[in-house]
Amino acid sequence: MRGSEANSGGRLPIDALHVDRQSGVPIQRQIYLALRDFILRGVLDQGTRLPATRELAKDLAISRNTAVRVYEQLSSEGYVETRQGSRTYVADLPSSTKANHKLGPEASAADLSPFAMAFDIDERIDFAPGAAALRPSTPDTGVFPFKTWNRLLGGHLLYRNVELLNYNFPYGYPPLQEAISKYVQAYRGVRCEPDQVLVTNGAQSGLDLLARVLLDKGDVVWMEEPGYVNARLVFGAAGADLRAWKVCEAGWDFADLPVGKPRVIYTTPSSQHPLGLTMGAEQRLRLLETASQHEAWVIEDDYDSEYRLAGRSVPAMQGNDAFGRTIYVGTFAKTMFPAIRIGFVVLPPLIAQRVKRAALYSGNQVSLPMQATLKDFIVNGHFARHLHRTRRLYAERRSIFTELVASRLGAWLQPYQSDVGIQIAYRLTRPMNDVAIARRANQQGLNVVPLSRYYSGPPVPGLLMGYAALDEKAMRSCLAILASVIETSEEIH
Amino acid sequence: MRGSEANSGGRLPIDALHVDRQSGVPIQRQIYLALRDFILRGVLDQGTRLPATRELAKDLAISRNTAVRVYEQLSSEGYVETRQGSRTYVADLPSSTKANHKLGPEASAADLSPFAMAFDIDERIDFAPGAAALRPSTPDTGVFPFKTWNRLLGGHLLYRNVELLNYNFPYGYPPLQEAISKYVQAYRGVRCEPDQVLVTNGAQSGLDLLARVLLDKGDVVWMEEPGYVNARLVFGAAGADLRAWKVCEAGWDFADLPVGKPRVIYTTPSSQHPLGLTMGAEQRLRLLETASQHEAWVIEDDYDSEYRLAGRSVPAMQGNDAFGRTIYVGTFAKTMFPAIRIGFVVLPPLIAQRVKRAALYSGNQVSLPMQATLKDFIVNGHFARHLHRTRRLYAERRSIFTELVASRLGAWLQPYQSDVGIQIAYRLTRPMNDVAIARRANQQGLNVVPLSRYYSGPPVPGLLMGYAALDEKAMRSCLAILASVIETSEEIH
Repeated sequence: MRGSEANSGGRLPIDALHVDRQSGVPIQRQIYLALRDFILRGVLDQGTRLPATRELAKDLAISRNTAVRVYEQLSSEGYVETRQGSRTYVADLPSSTKANHKLGPEASAADLSPFAMAFDIDERIDFAPGAAALRPSTPDTGVFPFKTWNRLLGGHLLYRNVELLNYNFPYGYPPLQEAISKYVQAYRGVRCEPDQVLVTNGAQSGLDLLARVLLDKGDVVWMEEPGYVNARLVFGAAGADLRAWKVCEAGWDFADLPVGKPRVIYTTPSSQHPLGLTMGAEQRLRLLETASQHEAWVIEDDYDSEYRLAGRSVPAMQGNDAFGRTIYVGTFAKTMFPAIRIGFVVLPPLIAQRVKRAALYSGNQVSLPMQATLKDFIVNGHFARHLHRTRRLYAERRSIFTELVASRLGAWLQPYQSDVGIQIAYRLTRPMNDVAIARRANQQGLNVVPLSRYYSGPPVPGLLMGYAALDEKAMRSCLAILASVIETSEEIH
Repeated sequence: MRGSEANSGGRLPIDALHVDRQSGVPIQRQIYLALRDFILRGVLDQGTRLPATRELAKDLAISRNTAVRVYEQLSSEGYVETRQGSRTYVADLPSSTKANHKLGPEASAADLSPFAMAFDIDERIDFAPGAAALRPSTPDTGVFPFKTWNRLLGGHLLYRNVELLNYNFPYGYPPLQEAISKYVQAYRGVRCEPDQVLVTNGAQSGLDLLARVLLDKGDVVWMEEPGYVNARLVFGAAGADLRAWKVCEAGWDFADLPVGKPRVIYTTPSSQHPLGLTMGAEQRLRLLETASQHEAWVIEDDYDSEYRLAGRSVPAMQGNDAFGRTIYVGTFAKTMFPAIRIGFVVLPPLIAQRVKRAALYSGNQVSLPMQATLKDFIVNGHFARHLHRTRRLYAERRSIFTELVASRLGAWLQPYQSDVGIQIAYRLTRPMNDVAIARRANQQGLNVVPLSRYYSGPPVPGLLMGYAALDEKAMRSCLAILASVIETSEEIH
């Protein structure tokens, strides 16, 4: 074992000690790491005597002090020992060195948990970074008032408010909880006290947290089909038994509810993901009644319904829930910008404290200066102004986009009837492979998503496209590319 | 059911319609919400005829247009319907209204998962927000170069780089992965390629993610005792079977390793949490060999070992691991400031892609402009300079602090021998209740932690205290308060 091929024959291979004076890493550090590596790899055997510090310094053209400090560090960590006065020898270490790594089995990916393997999915559509193009769920970051945002954020950092810079307010920054609570009451009809609000690191981490606190392995989840893929994934990873609840052009299929007693019902009633439909008042109440009968939780994912063409937005279902079973999930990714990575959850009072505690210990927290900045942004009216401005802008863009698609691609793409959200779902009117079309389109930077991606069972092929980030010129050029892709795609017979 | 006490007798109770013109909520919205509430609560029965829009406008002193739009919205959502020409009636809705909430059971906290209940712990020590005082793990935020940080961050936001502002680089911002990889190689002796680096929303979320991807219910975890509470909690919440691995003043107990084949071994070898000990080279190799024999993963939590009094820091154990079983967890919370909420994990290559995917779908991502800012901060040398400055500052403060404690409180508090980290563990030399002492001290804003909090079994009572955020004057005043608390605490006999 010792005496391996790598062995140096009892001498320090001084020529192999390469010192790089340009690397930025201190020279003492470089020599220390190299010697330690020799010892660990068995290049230097146990008992090998190292050169005296004077000698080492001369050979490497370093100061004697540096050499002394290298030996001191190696000695303090047990790699070398000093004997017979001041002579330095390699210490006796266990045998698991680099050269002997066949002693034990190496790690393998098979050692991971079922949770880790739940995300082993093939059918990922890659997006091109850079321009948003037709990417769904993407607002126009060019119109966000970053100057104002920076001023507010900079104030909190430069002021050095130690409350905000250290570990504090583990369950959320109270003034932000209050600001969000007021916002969702006024704009979304949510019934909410500030301490029901949990601020999360984006909406996705909120969904993941809910899956964990609500679901045990084998619990039944009713999941919209087609439905939001990333929600389906976290429910699946939590070990849930997913049952498809069909949604089609006519709406949610209440005549054919999934079988099995649900623990959780996931729904997007104000802007169905991906179809953009809105659930009517009667259906909402029927859903809440069904949930109550089953003693199920309802997760209401309200991700972009602030943007509705006609009139004010339809209020959230949570406001209709008399049973305390609806958990409302919101996000600032669409109303502000995706990289803000701030979402929130409105919890029923009975479970709020427990869920917030789970969020704290699982590390799902948002930086306090960011929370304080968002609070200022809302309370000072910047958020309402930005929402107002983008509502008008996106409404204009939506009608331009739908007209352009109708005139250019109407023979292939039929829109689902929707007046909400910042994306539009289109059905392919001819038998074509939407995944193949999306792949080709995205190679040219379009960033569309095939509708079939949102189905767990037999899909209705189509495309989901965002329009909010594009002006008319950009839309025209994207749609020209898309037309050329679709026109040259083959039909399936 | 209908015809309940709340019923209005078939008329809209116009006096109960309170319009608040100062609230900032549009008047149309207020009236809409109030009417919807009357309908849902059964105040307005099915079939009740609503006043004509002209009448409503007059009664409430609003414009006729506003009244029309309110009715239109209620109608589009199915709450009212228009019959007999233009008359508006309350529609027939299912019976689950507020007034009838006894129809189904209300939600209860008992409906939560075992994961949610895992954090139901009693023994929380509350910290006072505001000054850090003696709080462990707390750096001095007053010396961080926030002006530089803001300039870098502001640049990324104002430049409106759409790559950074939208959903992109789901597995981490590549230039930051590279910067971190270089840092841990040069400063911590970690062997690392950029794509092994996963940037996490703070170190705690990294630990939680590792618990989820590595552990299945019932898997054995060897956990240092005393050890980091928040790690123990996430392993427990993942369903692990925790086995205590004893650590005392003499170090890690290798003579009495826990029984059972571990799936994960959690350790803090460069700065034991909370005692501040450092594991020697021979013990590290023995630990790695043990892990390899058991085919266990080693989680090396390296949270503050950048701060070592004597010489350079001891390199990470990961650099000695020839088996690819060590997962290195790092954080910028101590070297920069806690509210940055950026940590990272260095993954063995074989599992890196799967773990990064699990991080993406569970929402454990860091805002891209923040990632880009941190990258600049490291690459431009600001990080190295700040580290250098704080190393000197904290070394000075450490010796002042230990001398002050020795002279003022030496009769009660005996330090564990340590030269690393930004906190110091003290053993109580007399039989006293450390929780009671900490509670009383923290009521006066000291923010100390009782050592017994870090034990799952019989504790060694003591206190863990941070010193890095305090100058000598502040130390003296904190320690005077602590002395008065301890002097007036009773001994247990």
